[in-house]
Amino acid sequence: MAGVARWWCSSVGARGAPSPAMEAGSWLPATSPWATRLVAAARTDCHDGRRCGKPATIPAAPPWMRGEKGRRAALRRFLQLLRVCSRWASYQVLTAFGVSKVLESGHSGYKAGDLVWGIIGCEEYTLVTNPESLFKISHPEFPLSYYTGVLGMPGLTAYAGFFDVAKPKKGEYVFVSAASGAVGQLVGQLAKITGCYVVGSAGSDEKVNLLKTKFGFDDAFNYKKEKDLNAALKRCFPDGIDIYFENVGGAMLDAVLLNMRLHGRVSMCGLISQYNLEQPEGVRNLFCIVTKRIRVEGFMVTEYFGTYSKFEEEMAGYLKKGKITYVEDVAEGIENVPAALIGIFYGRNIGKQLVAVARE
Amino acid sequence: MAGVARWWCSSVGARGAPSPAMEAGSWLPATSPWATRLVAAARTDCHDGRRCGKPATIPAAPPWMRGEKGRRAALRRFLQLLRVCSRWASYQVLTAFGVSKVLESGHSGYKAGDLVWGIIGCEEYTLVTNPESLFKISHPEFPLSYYTGVLGMPGLTAYAGFFDVAKPKKGEYVFVSAASGAVGQLVGQLAKITGCYVVGSAGSDEKVNLLKTKFGFDDAFNYKKEKDLNAALKRCFPDGIDIYFENVGGAMLDAVLLNMRLHGRVSMCGLISQYNLEQPEGVRNLFCIVTKRIRVEGFMVTEYFGTYSKFEEEMAGYLKKGKITYVEDVAEGIENVPAALIGIFYGRNIGKQLVAVARE
Repeated sequence: MAGVARWWCSSVGARGAPSPAMEAGSWLPATSPWATRLVAAARTDCHDGRRCGKPATIPAAPPWMRGEKGRRAALRRFLQLLRVCSRWASYQVLTAFGVSKVLESGHSGYKAGDLVWGIIGCEEYTLVTNPESLFKISHPEFPLSYYTGVLGMPGLTAYAGFFDVAKPKKGEYVFVSAASGAVGQLVGQLAKITGCYVVGSAGSDEKVNLLKTKFGFDDAFNYKKEKDLNAALKRCFPDGIDIYFENVGGAMLDAVLLNMRLHGRVSMCGLISQYNLEQPEGVRNLFCIVTKRIRVEGFMVTEYFGTYSKFEEEMAGYLKKGKITYVEDVAEGIENVPAALIGIFYGRNIGKQLVAVARE
Repeated sequence: MAGVARWWCSSVGARGAPSPAMEAGSWLPATSPWATRLVAAARTDCHDGRRCGKPATIPAAPPWMRGEKGRRAALRRFLQLLRVCSRWASYQVLTAFGVSKVLESGHSGYKAGDLVWGIIGCEEYTLVTNPESLFKISHPEFPLSYYTGVLGMPGLTAYAGFFDVAKPKKGEYVFVSAASGAVGQLVGQLAKITGCYVVGSAGSDEKVNLLKTKFGFDDAFNYKKEKDLNAALKRCFPDGIDIYFENVGGAMLDAVLLNMRLHGRVSMCGLISQYNLEQPEGVRNLFCIVTKRIRVEGFMVTEYFGTYSKFEEEMAGYLKKGKITYVEDVAEGIENVPAALIGIFYGRNIGKQLVAVARE
């Protein structure tokens, strides 16, 4: 649920009082001497401070909190939830990607009414001491929630990881794991725009259907129903894989390596199947990297923030022309945050999970 | 013992008779319609056909025959030896990198007396049907054995894997595993020429000493004496590793990943610790590739054969200026091939293992 939307930020700490972390000024690092008070917030009239404050801290649960099936995984999920709750209970302000409106600004680059997205505290009012870390929203004609997804961090992740890291060529074979997620669905569509053959994997038949009917993937499979991932990939890619957009790791990566083509590229975005394990699974087929001259490269979207404006314009163009479709799973109202959060651990969300705290 | 020298090739099959494989023309593929008879051989007077023929097939044992310590490893080595012997017993001609002299040629590019290196059959006389796969020797002023090493395939491997794959910059921190081997010793010296800080690992104190005193490594350690590879790397690289020239895989790769710096590169040349295992070890720390934006890239020297001339001139220059030192472990006489071969499995060789079948 990282990158969950906060429209808009909720109360200043629990019970409407400033949180200790906020008072200490430590909840968002000051990265520049010219950082000044920039208050991002909106619509304070829709909830009282207490009701808004508590749930809005929960969506910051990072992706490595997502688990697998089974008892131990369920226990881990529960423990992770406890950790989040304890963090909240200790008045530490959690952070997340969200969309906000500027109320006051002492920084010349921002004025009241500006719409911004970026990492800010899960609060109704947020004091931003490093405003240079935020991005202005140039296309308010789109749903603002898009700036937590297709036009925000996940969109730039897909764009940079596919184009800059994987360096695709027309006609290549592309495989995307966790393909119905916020990033995966975009990678698949960018690959189709590039003229590639694209297959995705997901964890339910409903998601697989979405990949094939809504996002235009050439093929897709439900990895939970496949007894042999290697065989599934051979079925979908009889001629092998040129590009693997890696979101999951573990057994899937091992199977993919066996099916890569010469000079294949693995754009390593995340290894979500491994985050909840006490010890990561070992990947055994690494010798394929030598024999097939594969390039495996990791990346972090933060290094591409400097290219955001170019990306925003290109992606906005794709959206306007209908070349990119984006699916969100929006939980309405702060009272639904717990259910939305728990649902993610079970893969119940279809598309990017958001919580609309308030709508303008 | 791959890439072992054959100075010069020995008898045409066992017992002086042409081998069945040779008669079938299958022991070296004809890759071009203009392939003609090119006979490479020399000094047939030093051994009788039978004595030369048998041992000269053994050195083609590939590097993945090298094992680890312990009983199971010893058993695997024995089984591997059996496989080699059975291949030899079946009259299949083994191939290896070696140096030869052209005796007759129907190809306009070669004439009698030319010195060549490349993959040819382990025979006294070799019928070459794809002469375009051989390289002419431009610097016979060096020991000809250098063309099985520093001026041949291992040299080009080190050069391409370090400069083209790892793309080093002056001042970077470089780690080389299997550092006293034919490739590793050259990578370390090329790194020093580039102005890098270089540490190598090897399997004996004698080899470690060689790395520090002969090849100019800044530091080195005996991996067999280290209880904790992660701690050893932290000791040698308190600021982390920029480039890992990977020759071994397994536990070493896992430890290296923990110690890589941001935007580090792993030039994956081989995973020799894994070749003899029934199932490769799993590498668990792959998430470091994401968080540290590491590039892991495999390569095969064959793809760089087109750049050989440029490499040969540059390496010859380094040798003449004394900037590169090269150490070989030469077994004299075909009767010492078995001992040399077995010694490799136990890491007894210091530097590139060769067998001098004949000297001119």
